[in-house]
Amino acid sequence: MDSAAALAIAIQEGYRAYALTVNYGQRHKIELAAARRVAEALGAVEHLILDLDLRAVGGSALTDNIAVPKNRKESEMFTSIPSTYVPARNTILLALALSWAETLNAEAIFIGVNAVDYSGYPDCRPEFIRAFEQTANLATKAGAEGRKFTIKTPLINLKKSEIIRLGLKLGVDFSLTHSCYDPSPEGWACGACDSCRLRRKGFQEAGVPDPTKYMAFK
Amino acid sequence: MDSAAALAIAIQEGYRAYALTVNYGQRHKIELAAARRVAEALGAVEHLILDLDLRAVGGSALTDNIAVPKNRKESEMFTSIPSTYVPARNTILLALALSWAETLNAEAIFIGVNAVDYSGYPDCRPEFIRAFEQTANLATKAGAEGRKFTIKTPLINLKKSEIIRLGLKLGVDFSLTHSCYDPSPEGWACGACDSCRLRRKGFQEAGVPDPTKYMAFK
Repeated sequence: MDSAAALAIAIQEGYRAYALTVNYGQRHKIELAAARRVAEALGAVEHLILDLDLRAVGGSALTDNIAVPKNRKESEMFTSIPSTYVPARNTILLALALSWAETLNAEAIFIGVNAVDYSGYPDCRPEFIRAFEQTANLATKAGAEGRKFTIKTPLINLKKSEIIRLGLKLGVDFSLTHSCYDPSPEGWACGACDSCRLRRKGFQEAGVPDPTKYMAFK
Repeated sequence: MDSAAALAIAIQEGYRAYALTVNYGQRHKIELAAARRVAEALGAVEHLILDLDLRAVGGSALTDNIAVPKNRKESEMFTSIPSTYVPARNTILLALALSWAETLNAEAIFIGVNAVDYSGYPDCRPEFIRAFEQTANLATKAGAEGRKFTIKTPLINLKKSEIIRLGLKLGVDFSLTHSCYDPSPEGWACGACDSCRLRRKGFQEAGVPDPTKYMAFK
């Protein structure tokens, strides 16, 4: 959802958008097909899927033999970093995006991080994004030559319901998107992982029907 | 050479070292086998080779259909960033190392960057390393919880000849290492790319026989 909304915003701001997805060995590999549908529907110039098997690194419920937490208490959901945290994932994603951005001569990198209705991942916070941006401009030939990269995070301060309303206004078809960390083989959402619960709550608060097929709720 | 020396230093400082190599689609893929030999000879606890095909991103003579520059003028070699620059490569390498380091509960990441006898790559400079270190500590669960990562660059201010002398003192067998960007299919070094020339010059200045098999010199 957040990546789809971020892409729609980039396009609405007039950017020619190149969409990057990473097949990192995530349990919910089904999101790759969803990303392809979204990129095409919104009109990305190109959609690149890079393979990088982080199961060799492990350390996360999304890439390793660790159970995805279900039905966590609300109080827990916003105070402790869950086992679905993938070590350094957004640093890796942004580094890959930076590499492609430099090759493309792009000036901005959009990422749909959110630090309001989120799972407490440290690499979704504004201070991380600002530090990465500074690093990006020191790391690259473009940066060394004075052409600066901006990391854009249009959703960082929005509630999930606000992201949904904004996305709908920009023509995002959220039925094409996938959020669940632990879907059934057929692609039904579990309804109980943090990602499902944030999604459901967002649609409820936005007062908009949730197009997701859930297996069960609590 | 630099990665081998950095590994030897880490082990000499008492670290249990986990060696990471990335198969990123580099033209000189032969360095992967060299890395395996070096990691084993020096006693790394584990050696992980991650596949990440940056040829899909391109933009470099090492990953794209661009010629490797040969016999560049010395004056050029230290003032302009050559086409062998791989966009954001060290950011990607460090991001992957950070992910593994967090999973392993490691506290330091060693990288053999050098900002003296080097090709002017921006991501070898101390200011980049410091910015990445700061980013790493904001990006990770470990950092957010107060366990800090240090990026160690023991070679950053050494001349190539000093790296060679130090490596030899620590038992590095440089005949196991590979530097050339454009080797023959049999693994002979070209003798003319920046990497070969920096290597040769280093051995000459160190007054030590160079074990490398070169096809030709200029």
